[in-house]
Formats: sequence, structure tokens, C-alpha cells
Amino acid sequence: MTTTELRARRDRVLGVGASLFYRDPITIVRGDGVWLFDADGRRYVDMYNNVPCVGHCHPHVVEAMRQQASTLNVHSRYLHEGVLDYAERLTALHADPLTSVVFACTGTEANEVAMAMARVATGGRGFICTDSAYHGNSAEVSRLTDATEATDEIRPVPYPQRYRPLRSGLSSSELAELYLSEVRSALDGFEQDGIPLAGMLVCPILANEGLPEIPDGFMPRAAEMVRDAGGLFIADEVQAGFCRTGKWWGYEAMRFVPDIVTLGKPMGNGMPLAGAVARSELVDAFRQHTGYFNTFASSPLQAAVGMAVIDVIEAENLRENAADVGEYLRGELMKLQSRCEPMADIRGHGLFLGLEWVSDRVAKTPDRDGAVAFVNSLKDKGFLIGNAGALGNVLKIRPPLVFSREHADLFLTAFEETMGELHGRGS
Amino acid sequence: MTTTELRARRDRVLGVGASLFYRDPITIVRGDGVWLFDADGRRYVDMYNNVPCVGHCHPHVVEAMRQQASTLNVHSRYLHEGVLDYAERLTALHADPLTSVVFACTGTEANEVAMAMARVATGGRGFICTDSAYHGNSAEVSRLTDATEATDEIRPVPYPQRYRPLRSGLSSSELAELYLSEVRSALDGFEQDGIPLAGMLVCPILANEGLPEIPDGFMPRAAEMVRDAGGLFIADEVQAGFCRTGKWWGYEAMRFVPDIVTLGKPMGNGMPLAGAVARSELVDAFRQHTGYFNTFASSPLQAAVGMAVIDVIEAENLRENAADVGEYLRGELMKLQSRCEPMADIRGHGLFLGLEWVSDRVAKTPDRDGAVAFVNSLKDKGFLIGNAGALGNVLKIRPPLVFSREHADLFLTAFEETMGELHGRGS
Repeated sequence: MTTTELRARRDRVLGVGASLFYRDPITIVRGDGVWLFDADGRRYVDMYNNVPCVGHCHPHVVEAMRQQASTLNVHSRYLHEGVLDYAERLTALHADPLTSVVFACTGTEANEVAMAMARVATGGRGFICTDSAYHGNSAEVSRLTDATEATDEIRPVPYPQRYRPLRSGLSSSELAELYLSEVRSALDGFEQDGIPLAGMLVCPILANEGLPEIPDGFMPRAAEMVRDAGGLFIADEVQAGFCRTGKWWGYEAMRFVPDIVTLGKPMGNGMPLAGAVARSELVDAFRQHTGYFNTFASSPLQAAVGMAVIDVIEAENLRENAADVGEYLRGELMKLQSRCEPMADIRGHGLFLGLEWVSDRVAKTPDRDGAVAFVNSLKDKGFLIGNAGALGNVLKIRPPLVFSREHADLFLTAFEETMGELHGRGS
Repeated sequence: MTTTELRARRDRVLGVGASLFYRDPITIVRGDGVWLFDADGRRYVDMYNNVPCVGHCHPHVVEAMRQQASTLNVHSRYLHEGVLDYAERLTALHADPLTSVVFACTGTEANEVAMAMARVATGGRGFICTDSAYHGNSAEVSRLTDATEATDEIRPVPYPQRYRPLRSGLSSSELAELYLSEVRSALDGFEQDGIPLAGMLVCPILANEGLPEIPDGFMPRAAEMVRDAGGLFIADEVQAGFCRTGKWWGYEAMRFVPDIVTLGKPMGNGMPLAGAVARSELVDAFRQHTGYFNTFASSPLQAAVGMAVIDVIEAENLRENAADVGEYLRGELMKLQSRCEPMADIRGHGLFLGLEWVSDRVAKTPDRDGAVAFVNSLKDKGFLIGNAGALGNVLKIRPPLVFSREHADLFLTAFEETMGELHGRGS
């Protein structure tokens, strides 16, 4: 079946406008490790997908899924030891006070839980987020999506960054102060308007904002300010978590401990699995106040698959791999920077890199079209990345954690070639 | 590990107050067809769980899951024929105009999609629901949970029923008129208050309300009234769908066609899988307006498992089985009714029965405690049912669709024994 035929069927049955990647979308039929294969047998290095974090179709994860699905899969209102084993193992990977978990099926649901938990714990309802955030697709959580204007309960602050700072010429710590003063203003605004504070919800590495370099100490200080004002600090680790940054959690990379952590995407390597991890008194209060129940969550199947993902991360040293290969790839890209005019800023953590694409380095003119063209050219060469960020001009590199130096070298060669073809400056 | 130890671990890691069934909760370790097995090797006939609709651990579903998980599981922004095959097969099972689908992971998410779709299509924001409804756990959807008072956007109506009708002495069609006048009032209320209507969201068989006998023609007439007022009628088929009633969809049992249908629980036999099926122009408008994306939804894994569930329903004639065994069980229970004083009303559709439990048949005094005691006694005899309904006094019987006459006979024997033990009137 041709791409044209598939697209026509898709428009009919899934709706016109269901989003697709790439100018010429690809039909993927098979995955293996970092590799994806299309219907014509072409292979691609997957450098976009964080969900299959231990690699596409990892046999240990598939076998755990099969084994549990053929033994028992049922809701959580019966006792099941496997669910407890997983919950204990997961929370043990977190900072000391974060000992309890509420499981859900999607990152959206995990953020719903976290927001409700913050409301229950504080009695408040005001939330601070950034002005270029995305935390999910429900009505509640999407109030935080690209929230550029303050509403009654949602107050956005400019996301902290060093590349296009609020004011130029400041040191990193001076810049942190400046961005923190925006948080201060939001807190004061809630107080003045008589809206009791629930908390602040933010991705600790600001993934959707474009993975900016965050001025020194912003996250720990913001968390402190929010707590001092009676709120809770929620870290959305749906993208940052599970060793993506070279640390287990993004909050470790940012050197602070949140009150609530939400987890999702990589947690089940593709099995819908998510959760909110928090201090036990927060979880207890949430349970008692809401009676929360989620039919498919906290199931033996979720637990078995989640456990298998942690098994593989540990057995294959994927945290160390993310740190090591991420550093290598970043270093090699920095060597190319002087010869690649559009690549104005290289940043990120572990195996999650953002390349800021501009048409003029001095004016820092964002070049979304250039970024899209580069992404599509790399796709044609067999490398799948994306574009993202507040301005859509950031090349987003986020491969499965089994991505190796050898894969990085293949990519770097293709990257140089593409540079030469599109910008006449390649090797 | 003892039940006491498991409960202590569960309280610690999942939070105190995470709900558990039964006075003495059970530890389930294995499932097979309609059977569940506890840690001590005791077996139970599962007469509660609608999620494993084709039976616990059905080998065809498990194999489809394994096969797809070991081949490819990735998000929906690449083309994939299996996802389209499933979407086409699913929508073909629906009434003619319902040709498109938005997949999600949970019933909550499906209802979020449906409500957003209704808002986009109508430009309205007012919703009508019943006063004893449950449609999910998100902030948005839980506005409809037990909504006893009208708010700006949510207006509950008394759920239609014949057992405790709004007024006694009326025929079924007169009673329908009376309940429809409540819908009329809600519609008028929105108009008077200048709140544009989005629609009405209701389970077509009123499962959470307690599965009442619905006065003749209420659902089709309510749908008509809502449409005439410019709204959309959304049928929440998360419980009623997938042959539970002996028809594929609850709306067929109720003889009408909704504008949007939401699906969940049984759809993936335990794999998180849900969706909203609707007319294509509604789905198109929703896609274009919202850019909805759900990381784990519309995946090859969801599609393969969902397809396998439909395979089994068709190959094993489970729709016919639900109709046949449901009618048999209902008939046999009616024979027991004269000797079982508390069982005041027997109702339902297919393999979904509700037994209204009262302490006084004339006064119709709801007996929640009696229902709970009966449920716990049946559990001790190896039969898992639950209690539900607006007053918590309805015995809820909702086995996997592979439940046979032989299983029904085992249950009926245990039911009579329990009657004798608790009410001194058994055989």
C-alpha cells in the first residue's frame, strides 16, 4: 500500500489533521534497539524516541509483558505483590522523602494527579508554569500549555534561559535572580488577588521550552520560594526521567528535590504507564480526599513491564551510557559548530540535546524553516530527529538510551554531509 | 507474605486509602478465562470484571500483544497500516454515521476527547449529565461525578428509572416524559443563563447509576432534544460497549444513535486502550482545532491487542453468549426472587445485571449493608461480584463475556446457599 493510500485512509478514519512527522511521512513497520525500519526495508537510526528508552522491542521487556499478560492482569482493588515490588523499587530510586506513588496510564494523567495532590495538600488552587510549557492534553493540564497570559489560577513566568535572556550582559547567577523575580511576581500576584497558591509545575530541564541552558540555581531557588509561599513544587519528569539526562532524574541534574515528581513516557518502554511519586503524607492525603481509582493503572501488567525496564537500565548501564555518549555527541557537535553557521547554541543533558538553529548568529534570528529542512534531510539519510522548542527552531535529539558512540559517529557523518548540502560548508 | 504484611506495604508505598475490595481483601495471583486464583490456590468465578472481556489471559490476545511488542511499538506520527486496519474494523462495528475515531489510553481520556469535541463542534460549553454519574477521574470529567447541584457549565438531571420513579403510578412512557421534562428544564436553564450548550454525556444503560430499568424511549428522545437545542449527545460506552449488553453497543440496546461514543475498559482486555468514535466531520474539526496528540495512543501495540479482542468476540460468539447466558441467569434469579426478600428488583442487559437490595420491599428501603454482606459471603464461597449504584445497594454482576450457563449454575447454587445463611430462606 502506497503512502498516498495510507494517508487517505488515515484522514478518513483518524481524522484530517492527525499530526504526522516529516514532509514525506514514513511508514514504520519494525523496530530493533535504536533502529527503525520502513515498509521498503530502509533503516533509520531512531534519535527521537524517548519512549522505547531501553531500545525498540527489547526482548527482556517483551518477555516480561508476555509472561505477566498470560498469568494475570487485573485492576488494583485486589492485593498483588508484583505491584508493590515495583512501587517499592521505583520509589527507592528517588530522593529520600519521595517514598510513595500513585500510578496512572499517561503523563497527562500523572500531571492531573500531581495538580490534585497539590490542591489537596495546600488548600490552594493557583499554579505557576512557564510560558512555553506542555504538560499534557486534558482540559485541566492543557491550561498550562503555552500559557502566555495570566488567568485566575494559572500564572506563567518567562522560562529561564541564557541564549535569549530577559536582559543581556548578566552573569548566570544574576540572570537566575532576574528570572526568580518573575516567580516572585507571580507569587505576589496570587497573594494580591486572594488566590491561594497550590504550587509550581515545571519540567526540570525545560524540555518543551527547547532545553535551554538554565541559569545557575534557578530550580532549587524557585522550589524554595514556592515552598516558602505555601505551595508545592512539582517536577514533570515525563521527558527528563529514567536516566535521560545521565542521572536517574532531571531534578538530580538540576540539584534539587521536588515535592512531587511525575513520570511517564519511558517508564514502560511503550506500555502505557505513568505515575506521580511524592512524600507519603501527600499521597495519603490525596488518596483519602479523592478516592482516586484508575482502571488500567497499578496493574500487574504495568508493574511487570515497568520492573523489566528498570532491570534493563541497570543491567545494561544505560544511565552511564546516556551520560557518556551524550557527552561525546555534544563534544563532537561543538567541534562542528564553527563550520555550521545555523547551529548557534548546543545544549542539553545526557542523551537529550537541543541545537538552536538561526539564520543570523548575531541577531539570533530563529530559523524554524531551516531547522525543519535539516530534520527532513537527515531523515532522508536515515536519521530520525525532530524540531521543537518555544520557537520551533531547536533540533531535538533524544534517542533511545541504548544509542552508542558508533551510532553517534554515523550520525555525525550524516550531519556534516547535510551541512554541506544545505549550507555549503560541510567537510 | 500474609495479607496483613501486603496491606502494610501497600499503605506505605501506594498510600493509605487506596481502595480495596472486600472486608478481607484477596490476593489474586493468576487468571484463566472466568477464573481467578488467589495466593492460597483458592479459585473464584470472576463475575465482576468487564475489562478482561474475552476472559483472563486469553492466549490469542496475549500472542497478539507479544507479537506486536516484539515487532514494533511506536507513537502515531509515523504511518502504520495496523493502526488503520484496527480503526476501520472498529468503526465498521458502529452505526453508519460513526466512521472516525480518536484513540486514547483510558476511559477518562476518551471522555475528555468527547467533551472537547462537543465544545469544538457546537461552540458551546454547557453539559447535561445525570445526578449519579461517573465518567472518569480527571478534573474536567469528574465535574460530572455525582453532580447533584447545577453549576455554570454542568447541569445534572435525575437519572431515569422505574424502581424509585420521580412520581409513582405512571406508565413507562409517561415516566419517560417526566424525566425528559427534566432534560428540557436543564436545556432551558442553559439558555436562560446564556450558557451555550455543548451536549449531554451519559452512559446509555446508566451503569454507575445502578443499571435501572430506563423508561421507554428516554434515550432516543433525550438525544433528539439535545440535538434540537444545538448540542451533541455523547454515549459513554466504557462499561456498556463491546457486547456487554448482548448487543455490540449499549446504544443499540437503547435503540438510538449518539453523535459521539466513548470506549474503554474491555477494549484491550486489560491493555490501556480507549477511544472516542464519532462522525468524521466532528473528528476532523476536533483534530484541526486541538492538534490532539496522545503519546501511547494509536500505537501498533494498542491496535494489535484491540484487533485480537474483536477477533475473539467474533470467533467465540461472545455477543450471542452474553445475550443467551445473561437471559438465562436473569430468568433463574427471577425464580429465586419470591424467596429472597432483599432482592427487590432484578434488571440489566445481557451479562450485566443489577440486583436492588432492600430491607423492606414495600418501603423500598435501600440496604447497602445487606448488599455488602451478601457480596462478602459470595466471595467466601468463591464468587466475585460487587456492590454499586447511586445508593450502593445494587449487587453488580458483570462477568467476563466467556461466562457460561455452567458458571451461572454454580453461582445460582452459591446464591441460594448464601440466601439461606443470611436470610434463613434458602432452599
